[in-house]
Amino acid sequence: MSQALVRKLRDKLGARYILDKPEELATYECDACVLIQKKPDLVALPKTPEEVAFIVQACIEANVPYTARGAGTGLSGGALPMQGGVQIGLNRMDRITEIDEANRTATVEVGVINASLNLALKAHGLFYAPDPSSQSACTLGGNIAENAGGIHCIKYGVTTDHILALQVVLPDGTLTWMGGKNRRSHGPNLVGLMVGSEGTLGVITQAIVKLTPVPEKVRVYLAAFNSVADAGGTVASIIQSGLMPSALEFMDAFTVVAVNQAFNVGFPENAEAVLLIELDGYPAQLLHDEIKLKEILAAHQVSQIRVGETEDERAALWKARKATVAAYGRYAPAFYLNDTVIPRSQLVPLLEKIYEVAERYDVIICNVFHAGDGNLHPHVLFDPDNADQVRRGMQASEEILHACLAVGGALSGEHGIGIEKSELMPLQFSPESLETMKKLKRIFDPANLSNPEKIFPMRTACGEARHAISPSLLTGEGLWI
Amino acid sequence: MSQALVRKLRDKLGARYILDKPEELATYECDACVLIQKKPDLVALPKTPEEVAFIVQACIEANVPYTARGAGTGLSGGALPMQGGVQIGLNRMDRITEIDEANRTATVEVGVINASLNLALKAHGLFYAPDPSSQSACTLGGNIAENAGGIHCIKYGVTTDHILALQVVLPDGTLTWMGGKNRRSHGPNLVGLMVGSEGTLGVITQAIVKLTPVPEKVRVYLAAFNSVADAGGTVASIIQSGLMPSALEFMDAFTVVAVNQAFNVGFPENAEAVLLIELDGYPAQLLHDEIKLKEILAAHQVSQIRVGETEDERAALWKARKATVAAYGRYAPAFYLNDTVIPRSQLVPLLEKIYEVAERYDVIICNVFHAGDGNLHPHVLFDPDNADQVRRGMQASEEILHACLAVGGALSGEHGIGIEKSELMPLQFSPESLETMKKLKRIFDPANLSNPEKIFPMRTACGEARHAISPSLLTGEGLWI
Repeated sequence: MSQALVRKLRDKLGARYILDKPEELATYECDACVLIQKKPDLVALPKTPEEVAFIVQACIEANVPYTARGAGTGLSGGALPMQGGVQIGLNRMDRITEIDEANRTATVEVGVINASLNLALKAHGLFYAPDPSSQSACTLGGNIAENAGGIHCIKYGVTTDHILALQVVLPDGTLTWMGGKNRRSHGPNLVGLMVGSEGTLGVITQAIVKLTPVPEKVRVYLAAFNSVADAGGTVASIIQSGLMPSALEFMDAFTVVAVNQAFNVGFPENAEAVLLIELDGYPAQLLHDEIKLKEILAAHQVSQIRVGETEDERAALWKARKATVAAYGRYAPAFYLNDTVIPRSQLVPLLEKIYEVAERYDVIICNVFHAGDGNLHPHVLFDPDNADQVRRGMQASEEILHACLAVGGALSGEHGIGIEKSELMPLQFSPESLETMKKLKRIFDPANLSNPEKIFPMRTACGEARHAISPSLLTGEGLWI
Repeated sequence: MSQALVRKLRDKLGARYILDKPEELATYECDACVLIQKKPDLVALPKTPEEVAFIVQACIEANVPYTARGAGTGLSGGALPMQGGVQIGLNRMDRITEIDEANRTATVEVGVINASLNLALKAHGLFYAPDPSSQSACTLGGNIAENAGGIHCIKYGVTTDHILALQVVLPDGTLTWMGGKNRRSHGPNLVGLMVGSEGTLGVITQAIVKLTPVPEKVRVYLAAFNSVADAGGTVASIIQSGLMPSALEFMDAFTVVAVNQAFNVGFPENAEAVLLIELDGYPAQLLHDEIKLKEILAAHQVSQIRVGETEDERAALWKARKATVAAYGRYAPAFYLNDTVIPRSQLVPLLEKIYEVAERYDVIICNVFHAGDGNLHPHVLFDPDNADQVRRGMQASEEILHACLAVGGALSGEHGIGIEKSELMPLQFSPESLETMKKLKRIFDPANLSNPEKIFPMRTACGEARHAISPSLLTGEGLWI
């Protein structure tokens, strides 16, 4: 990296906000998808949108790639600087600049942590709905870049449904706002295009987000079943009944044992599957919904029901759900999270397929996921030192992914394409669609400096998909921390 | 138009589905924004997506522009063929190909009428939420192209919130699907980009739409007030209270008189403003909401409340609202509908501004609009034979538009940019944003054949806005039917 660029950035931001020592850069070598690693040449920590624009302009001038990063909790390597260059760490941009009760909006800088915004909103009786499991750490900028989901998205929608306006540094260095506090933007929907574009079309610096009134009453039901089919049938019946749960989550037997051992939550260990179902709304409505829900549960041979009524009881149930992957750590030092989304009606056949695949490849695959959305998360557990196990796990993942796509599923439910899945895009998209996407990338970023190599399968010839999982992982030759 | 192209289309579609006689083309000379007229050279009426692709391919080959059209109920001239060429009338593509209860989706061809889909869904206990006032005539394709709104969008969202996947003929002639039945598409959000793009990026042929369970109970409240400020204050209080009405509509005194005379609905004529407020949900929840609502109404000096309880009573109240513009016809032979959207908190000052402007220009401006969304619809009434009145009306409209933009409003709430407002885009968007939009148009449609001259201000130099209303209208020289 040119010393002129380093000096320029240091002069503008101050020396303490430019990191380039190896030990400083180590923090930035991967995100939560630890399989893929790549260090930046330099990390810049701006405090304002104008500083971000300055960094991007300096990178353009020096022809150096740049990649934005929030908390690094992503699961598809979206924030990794694949061609080195400047990592723009946005964590210092953590101001909530406005909470507007009358318009039910908040204006935030992108470094604000998801849970911090909700903490600030509490006194206003409002909340920001999309809540990834990593919400106590992840930033809103990362949520927007990946179009993050979460347990409440079944009722309230994913991130893109809650973003009204964005301030963006475009890859030509201009700082501009798109959208507004109104219910829709008009003209071409640039805000919609930017959400989920993973930093490939520019660096998002601020957002105006939609807020939702806190429901008057919330109840969480833990329902245990003696078969996966009963749990899957319950999910289908809930959707068909017209009930609109605010969460509808699935945990399999292995997951229940894991969270019990990790958090001592006393989930029923003789169950083959557990659903966590949340209802919210008015007290009287909840009573009504509960009657309907219990009828459905009974019709599907529920073996046990537990109710989380108080805030503490509910928090205990959700803690076990949200920290599940930490619990998996007791069984294997690493996991690979498959993130696909299928039509909800395909839930039971797909779960049966997953268990069959796990047996055939002799790997542990445990399932905890957003059942109400059809967003599967088969977690393949493995020991990175066991190359054969890694290879079998990745081959099993590949087969699962193909099975999901075959029933009309999609490559990613909520964790994005990033670097992990960019070469897989041809599995789902036609050559024409891919060509349109690449053209889109080129007009926004002709120099290809804004988070290069992400989403768009630049290396793969049109129509030709490589392996479902990158070859280095399939052969167990991934790099591990 | 080349006879070779005409013959080619006639051979493929059959002679009766190709219209080119002057009396046949007359139907297509304008949409519901009657101020602007332009006839196509030929109308093609395809029956299948493949026929649409054939037409587009034939147009590309002959270098002839094409413009899709649904029912012609648009209000910004979006379906007008500004450079002549082929009008693709999509009304014959009116099949509902699937209603999928398990996934709560419907797959439809774009010629399906909005109300027809809802009729078909009734037996399934589901509905498609976005409901423009023209829903008994307008097609889903037009709704998607313009990202249409409607009275229920305050609770359920606008069209873009309900579109999961689209089948599109891209401007290079390929027929392709984008998105899927899942909760999100991934990679660049092409579906989101296509919704609201008004046919400039391709012709939409089919859609998979999200369905919503029909609420168990619905009630409509008519609330009359002695001042506009009280009605506006009520809107603000409802939003701040956490109530989530399924509709929140405003009618001013002139509008009330007009609908009474037209439909004999007996709305309170001594009122300065009337709100129509709909609540939906569970019976017990409605009782709870009603208490809260009545407290708010009382706090804002409501002078009269009427409740629509049965389906017939509710239909009567909504009929008056949805057919308001027909009622205006008793007072003036033409109207110009301003469609801007402002932050909800700015409602009362903006209404005051509108009345002040109306008085100063000596024109009748009546207001009926989606108050809960801040989507204003000041209707300027006039006699097209009175050129001076037309000019004053258009100047008043221009001033209102500027006032809306000054408080952070947007050019269009739900009727699109079309040809009506394309030259006004620089009033709201920076030169950089406009340049990005134009580049976007160019990669999708380098030959500029897909609905040319719409949305993108191709004629205006960047940063330079012309009049808020096109000059021919400002001078009263518009064409009238």
